[in-house]
Amino acid sequence: MTRPIILLHRPQLGENIGSCARVMLNFGLTELRLIAPRDGWPNAAAEPLSAGAFEAGVRVEVFDTIEAALGDLGTVLAATARPRGMEKPVVDAVGGAEAIQQRGLKTGILFGAENHGLPSEAVGLADMIMTYPVNPSFASLNLAQAVGVFCASWGASEGAVGRWQGEKSGVEPPAPKQDLIRMFEHLEEELERAGYFYPPDKTPLMKTNIRNGFIRGDWTAQEVRTFRGAIKALALGRGQARIKRDN
Amino acid sequence: MTRPIILLHRPQLGENIGSCARVMLNFGLTELRLIAPRDGWPNAAAEPLSAGAFEAGVRVEVFDTIEAALGDLGTVLAATARPRGMEKPVVDAVGGAEAIQQRGLKTGILFGAENHGLPSEAVGLADMIMTYPVNPSFASLNLAQAVGVFCASWGASEGAVGRWQGEKSGVEPPAPKQDLIRMFEHLEEELERAGYFYPPDKTPLMKTNIRNGFIRGDWTAQEVRTFRGAIKALALGRGQARIKRDN
Repeated sequence: MTRPIILLHRPQLGENIGSCARVMLNFGLTELRLIAPRDGWPNAAAEPLSAGAFEAGVRVEVFDTIEAALGDLGTVLAATARPRGMEKPVVDAVGGAEAIQQRGLKTGILFGAENHGLPSEAVGLADMIMTYPVNPSFASLNLAQAVGVFCASWGASEGAVGRWQGEKSGVEPPAPKQDLIRMFEHLEEELERAGYFYPPDKTPLMKTNIRNGFIRGDWTAQEVRTFRGAIKALALGRGQARIKRDN
Repeated sequence: MTRPIILLHRPQLGENIGSCARVMLNFGLTELRLIAPRDGWPNAAAEPLSAGAFEAGVRVEVFDTIEAALGDLGTVLAATARPRGMEKPVVDAVGGAEAIQQRGLKTGILFGAENHGLPSEAVGLADMIMTYPVNPSFASLNLAQAVGVFCASWGASEGAVGRWQGEKSGVEPPAPKQDLIRMFEHLEEELERAGYFYPPDKTPLMKTNIRNGFIRGDWTAQEVRTFRGAIKALALGRGQARIKRDN
């Protein structure tokens, strides 16, 4: 299977990006995606800490939004230290490496910014939460360390493919995230129009709650198409029940 | 048992010592031994990278020789990337954490200098060699990363975070099926009204397809309530957007 991609959301320090690249390549990972890096990219501060990892094989892609960065992925793990109270599987680094081997899809591991971690909307798009059993009174890992712990577990699991006995028997693979994101946008647009999101300060939470349930279901592309038809029907009607609307 | 002690042999950069202290405390380790640190101790360069770990609990002892630093230990693991051709057990980070738990003795994990790693005499004093499955063409880990990988495995061996079981492990249990069934009936009734189910002979299949995705998601009771609100909003609108309907 393809090796997992590391995604850094709004990383601040070039030094940390360089350190991430180094430890990625130490364990054989080469795809790094930066989402809205604070100081842009390329960043000269990344070079010394990378120990030459960029020249030796780590490729960097830059994205403006999480949605764009996740679009082509089939499995996303969100690394977070804080409990989120979201209904998702929670794994540690070893469990995360095993789970993505088992699912066998194009995978991204999403890490938050040095100061804030990941926003809940980002966690909401993930299939699983990955967290480490840290000391609760000193829980904040350096960003590159957090990446390194995962990379080491991935490296260790490479010999273990096929050992995993969990099931998941669906014939169809889950749809790529971009299909789900478009479905969410469609649903939310119609809900917006219907006056569903009230009060406004609760809107992001309401959206995340709805998205969570869908993300967990590993919907196939066919199921996404079917349900988009259902959203359209609910909002507009179909056939003789169709209502007229300009947009 | 007592938690393992981290030993750094001839560390060069204060920054790396600070980073080691931070990641140690992240995973609950508090004893750091420095053997002949190049720039002496204390070292002002260690402070910023430590993120306050020294004040928060990491204690440092300084020794002149490896023999003195290892003297009171019952188990010693030597971390090394290179094969040594020595007749010792070789473990990875997970295996190392398990082995020291099993032996139950006062334990030290010995890491070499940034540039040279550990001298063979130092490895010779160890009970086991600990090595990580690194990329052979880019094998040199940052010192603090090497320490971090062990610390994380130690933390994980202490228990806490769940392993991937091929099943969902959220805090809330899935809603009883009757809640989902009512939600399906609600959704299907509205879709019926909207003229969605066409042609009639395909209706049972369409319903099953929609239900499948939801069932797989293990929706909680709260999520079911939230989504039922969404169906209602789509069908009827809410607040000022509400449409009038008799039933």
